[in-house]
Amino acid sequence: MNPDPDYSAAYVRIGTDAGDSGHAFVFTIGRGNDVEVAAIKALAPYVLGQSAEELLADLGGVWRRLQHDSQLRWLGPEKGVMHMAIGAVVNALWDLRAKRAGKPLWRLLAELSPEELVDLVDFRYLSDALTRDDALELLRRAEPGRAERIARLEAEGYPAYTTTPGWLGYTDEKLARLSREAVAEGFPQIKLKVGASLDDDRRRLAIAREAVGPGIRIAVDANQRWDVDEAIEWMRALAPFDIAWIEEPTNPDDVLGHAAIARAISPIPVATGEHGANRVMFKQFLQAGALQVLQIDYTRVSGVNENLANLLLAAKFGVPVCPHAGGVGLCEAVQHLAMFDFVALSGTFDDRMIEFVDHLHEHFVTPVDVHDGRYWPPAAPGAGTEMHAASIAEYEFPADV
Amino acid sequence: MNPDPDYSAAYVRIGTDAGDSGHAFVFTIGRGNDVEVAAIKALAPYVLGQSAEELLADLGGVWRRLQHDSQLRWLGPEKGVMHMAIGAVVNALWDLRAKRAGKPLWRLLAELSPEELVDLVDFRYLSDALTRDDALELLRRAEPGRAERIARLEAEGYPAYTTTPGWLGYTDEKLARLSREAVAEGFPQIKLKVGASLDDDRRRLAIAREAVGPGIRIAVDANQRWDVDEAIEWMRALAPFDIAWIEEPTNPDDVLGHAAIARAISPIPVATGEHGANRVMFKQFLQAGALQVLQIDYTRVSGVNENLANLLLAAKFGVPVCPHAGGVGLCEAVQHLAMFDFVALSGTFDDRMIEFVDHLHEHFVTPVDVHDGRYWPPAAPGAGTEMHAASIAEYEFPADV
Repeated sequence: MNPDPDYSAAYVRIGTDAGDSGHAFVFTIGRGNDVEVAAIKALAPYVLGQSAEELLADLGGVWRRLQHDSQLRWLGPEKGVMHMAIGAVVNALWDLRAKRAGKPLWRLLAELSPEELVDLVDFRYLSDALTRDDALELLRRAEPGRAERIARLEAEGYPAYTTTPGWLGYTDEKLARLSREAVAEGFPQIKLKVGASLDDDRRRLAIAREAVGPGIRIAVDANQRWDVDEAIEWMRALAPFDIAWIEEPTNPDDVLGHAAIARAISPIPVATGEHGANRVMFKQFLQAGALQVLQIDYTRVSGVNENLANLLLAAKFGVPVCPHAGGVGLCEAVQHLAMFDFVALSGTFDDRMIEFVDHLHEHFVTPVDVHDGRYWPPAAPGAGTEMHAASIAEYEFPADV
Repeated sequence: MNPDPDYSAAYVRIGTDAGDSGHAFVFTIGRGNDVEVAAIKALAPYVLGQSAEELLADLGGVWRRLQHDSQLRWLGPEKGVMHMAIGAVVNALWDLRAKRAGKPLWRLLAELSPEELVDLVDFRYLSDALTRDDALELLRRAEPGRAERIARLEAEGYPAYTTTPGWLGYTDEKLARLSREAVAEGFPQIKLKVGASLDDDRRRLAIAREAVGPGIRIAVDANQRWDVDEAIEWMRALAPFDIAWIEEPTNPDDVLGHAAIARAISPIPVATGEHGANRVMFKQFLQAGALQVLQIDYTRVSGVNENLANLLLAAKFGVPVCPHAGGVGLCEAVQHLAMFDFVALSGTFDDRMIEFVDHLHEHFVTPVDVHDGRYWPPAAPGAGTEMHAASIAEYEFPADV
């Protein structure tokens, strides 16, 4: 589905008179990056000339104002280019807030009170599945163990899995070698792209399974290639290979389609979310039993605030969150949300992993620390979303917007 | 929900060496119009320097290429700013094709063969509800009566309803006067905005009902104000007023929410679609019984081609299509799709009406002809989407993109 990605980012830097700055971005795969830049520029009046102190003290309010600007909302509503632009602005403010607090974002969030956290979320359109009171109860239930879980996170890291071995187009030899290397590096799960040819998928899964042995999980990812009936047939054919999950079997808007697939191929879990447009879509995927693994993305939705809603929804339905990462800087960013989730909400590593792709980390000021198959919690202040000035200077595209 | 609309449009003009041109637009309500312009510019390489003859001969292919540009698709996928931009480019080509054919768009479409029509549609992600064969069958079934229905359309016009009386903020006297005028002008239905205050809604519905008498339908429109449970309670309270439909009771992405509302307030029909992101969402609304009136919009989805898919889906499920109009030029444009639907697909006026708002028609080269409560079929070649050069000159906003 994405045959020619040209990894790009629409990058936001919000500077202050105090000389500090918050950074964030929207990940894109090439053409259209300028469109995202134009959308971000349309939001400048919401931050330019404002008091940083006031903005940072009420990020729930900032998010609501951006989200409910009725003229900009018309362009979605709450989806696509404009929605992702709101996410970048909100996330740049979160980066600045975490830096000023002297904490990594995961810890900043994990040390907020349940009341402060729910104030960051808008429960409009969610109340048939999750109310403010539901959310408070979930957060309060997890509150007593926070300190203990922070210590565990720092001692054990957060489980990771790798997509590195499984790209389409690799030779069988390369697939086998990279699969073995993933196991040697301590990853408990690898992921293979599927959906181009059933025969190829069967052969590649056999090779991968032989390379990793029986104890390692193998997930597959169809990148939206199939219609509903096709997905069901294809996955029934792959079922004998002990599949950890099938990711994006069909169109990411198709709640009912995913639900039909999930029912038909049970117990193979359906995973999706990297193209989930907003919290209302995630609500429905959960209500319909259309996903068994919820994959948040850091730059697809409207920022940390909306992802808090997504994490709370997942917790309400008892569904594990395994963030999507890779691209440009997604690993650096989304680990913070997974770690917050562990400390303050889910309280468990069971069935939870953050995706890892070893790519482009060198452009970030605080690159991820992934070793022994684990993400190790960042200690540096901020959200992980600041790129090196030298990288920006080298790769900045002349903006004509 | 839309307290301060500033009616705007991102306008596309595709000129040719032959000196003719195709025109179309995306309707917006103010800020963000520039973002839509940037998105349209990102699509220029698909038409600039191309052969008009070749593009117009294969508008199904053009639509697929735009829709499946993997880099641009990432910005949705198939929703929001980028999706609407594709719609504008595709629709400008349809305007040009209809002008070259010397026909109004409705007639051009209604004179295509079933095979030509299904070639314009992409059935990917629809096949669990509508296959190419299903669509062919629906179109072939309606084929024999086309000439007769064209004659009927020209003799009787297409039924319209008006939203003019029902805006929030009008005095009770103005509501009563405009309601009476709507009846005098021959409209079989009026529509009132609701959702700000239940007491006000009750009072206004009583006034409107008294003004129009028992034979005129009164629909209500909540513009996405409610959560699911709130919508159910509110509409149960309004049920005694004999409501023709409730439009946009909640978030436009909430298929399951609309389905729950529809079940709870039956037999009051639920209407939605002006913010329906794409054909996959419409498919689900139909599958779930989440709408009983499907409201296509001319500039929200990716053009005539995607709206053909939406019309075919509605026909498959036996659900009437009552297009959304108003805004800037939406009446001029969308009437063509409703008239095509009557002639070549639905074959009936039953439960079908096009919305009418008497506003801004003077800026269009071929303004709608609405009288006696009917849209009268345009005879001028084109899609109705060309604005007067003088209007463009007067209202063009200095573009900085």
